[in-house]
Amino acid sequence: MSTQPIAVFDSGIGGLTVVRHLRSLLPSESLVYFGDTARVPYGSKSQRTVAAFSLDVARFLMQFEPKLMVVACNTASALAMDDLARELPIPVVGVLGPSAAAAARLARDGVIAILATEATIASGAYPAAVQAARRDARVEAIACPLFVPLAEEGRTSDDPAVRLIAEGYLSPLRGTTIDAAVLGCTHYPLLRDAIAAALGPQVAIVDSGREAALSVQQALAALGMLSAHSARGSMRCFVSDNPQRFRRLGARFLNEDVDSVEFVEPERYATPAASALPPA
Amino acid sequence: MSTQPIAVFDSGIGGLTVVRHLRSLLPSESLVYFGDTARVPYGSKSQRTVAAFSLDVARFLMQFEPKLMVVACNTASALAMDDLARELPIPVVGVLGPSAAAAARLARDGVIAILATEATIASGAYPAAVQAARRDARVEAIACPLFVPLAEEGRTSDDPAVRLIAEGYLSPLRGTTIDAAVLGCTHYPLLRDAIAAALGPQVAIVDSGREAALSVQQALAALGMLSAHSARGSMRCFVSDNPQRFRRLGARFLNEDVDSVEFVEPERYATPAASALPPA
Repeated sequence: MSTQPIAVFDSGIGGLTVVRHLRSLLPSESLVYFGDTARVPYGSKSQRTVAAFSLDVARFLMQFEPKLMVVACNTASALAMDDLARELPIPVVGVLGPSAAAAARLARDGVIAILATEATIASGAYPAAVQAARRDARVEAIACPLFVPLAEEGRTSDDPAVRLIAEGYLSPLRGTTIDAAVLGCTHYPLLRDAIAAALGPQVAIVDSGREAALSVQQALAALGMLSAHSARGSMRCFVSDNPQRFRRLGARFLNEDVDSVEFVEPERYATPAASALPPA
Repeated sequence: MSTQPIAVFDSGIGGLTVVRHLRSLLPSESLVYFGDTARVPYGSKSQRTVAAFSLDVARFLMQFEPKLMVVACNTASALAMDDLARELPIPVVGVLGPSAAAAARLARDGVIAILATEATIASGAYPAAVQAARRDARVEAIACPLFVPLAEEGRTSDDPAVRLIAEGYLSPLRGTTIDAAVLGCTHYPLLRDAIAAALGPQVAIVDSGREAALSVQQALAALGMLSAHSARGSMRCFVSDNPQRFRRLGARFLNEDVDSVEFVEPERYATPAASALPPA
């Protein structure tokens, strides 16, 4: 039993789709969330930069003495899990591992599509995780960079531009019988219907937020660290930029209002760095 | 006469469309460019964050003792010009002022559309600059956030999704006779034909890169600081992340190969900051 919060971190706002599942599955847990909105997105950036930013954010969250850290960003899960697991003295659950395992389990004939950001796809982390869970799996990995800005702009699955772009991204899969597809970026559940329509009706869709929430539940149960409270847990959000925008867009991702959002100054989370030059 | 370089800074890769015009108009000038690819984009971020990032980048570029600084990013021009002009001991030319002046001059009846990022539009800087140049101007300001990721993905004006999205953004202008439209983000020239088609044939298009290059030429001529060399000037690019991606995408923006791209570590450009917390 534990009253410590669960820490959740994301490059920005997408991680709230993971929080949505955590709140529904583990309502009595308290959550503390950090969205790195000053440096978002991570999905087009390098391993080195994503790992450095992820460590900044994780260190900030450690001040709340969390019992577990959720990496609610597929790009950070793909590029920074090793660094985070090495650095943090608490259990770390990413969105990538549980999703890869679920896809391996659900895909009847083992043919799996991974839809994710440029950086996640380039890392090769998803095919590696899927194949570790199921050796006969065949993975088709597709980068879908526009889904993030489309979702952030408030477009939904019935938007003709979303349909057109989804069909374009998934057209290389025509002629392949896909069994399961992973929504390998936490923004993508907001465009789920358009993605499902482009994939066709026989495909099982894996939502990485739901799978991560299930893994968190299992890990806390195994460790005897589930909350003993019966009341609904609290939720505090921190962002590195633009709390108003986070609050405004966040409700759509979380499916409830985002009440508490606090701005964090750069000196409270960014890597200590000495400027090589004096100010001009 | 001066052999000092011109410094050019941008949030990422878009500023290369400004450099394209500088290279063509002022071929004997040497250029040093910084793209803040670790923290790109600026267009969805707050004034405070954009100003802080812009000062970081400008300070880095000052080590090359430039004779003039070009702010080749409309968002930084809209949100950080005052801070930059106050801080830097050299002339600063932004992309916004020259574009607003050109639009005011070119618009027959003074009806001007400004197409730009979310942050540039929210700042109100374009309408203010247009109206300072022409009091009877009427400005229609439209945020077009998807044009940046569409251009970075390599989509062009003949792409059906680009056409559809451009028509959607510009649909509020139907029924208004626009005289001139400003491409108020340095990515937008890559989608110029689709934007022009959605606006209709009577609209004069203002490319902020071309206008900024003309202003730089005028400023250097007035100051007696044009290069005396007859040989083609050199060009060095620095980025805060992913030099390979910059080189790969850059050719399309610059219209020539990007030869020299160097990675800059965070401690060489980021604001000095003391972490509030020891590493976990």
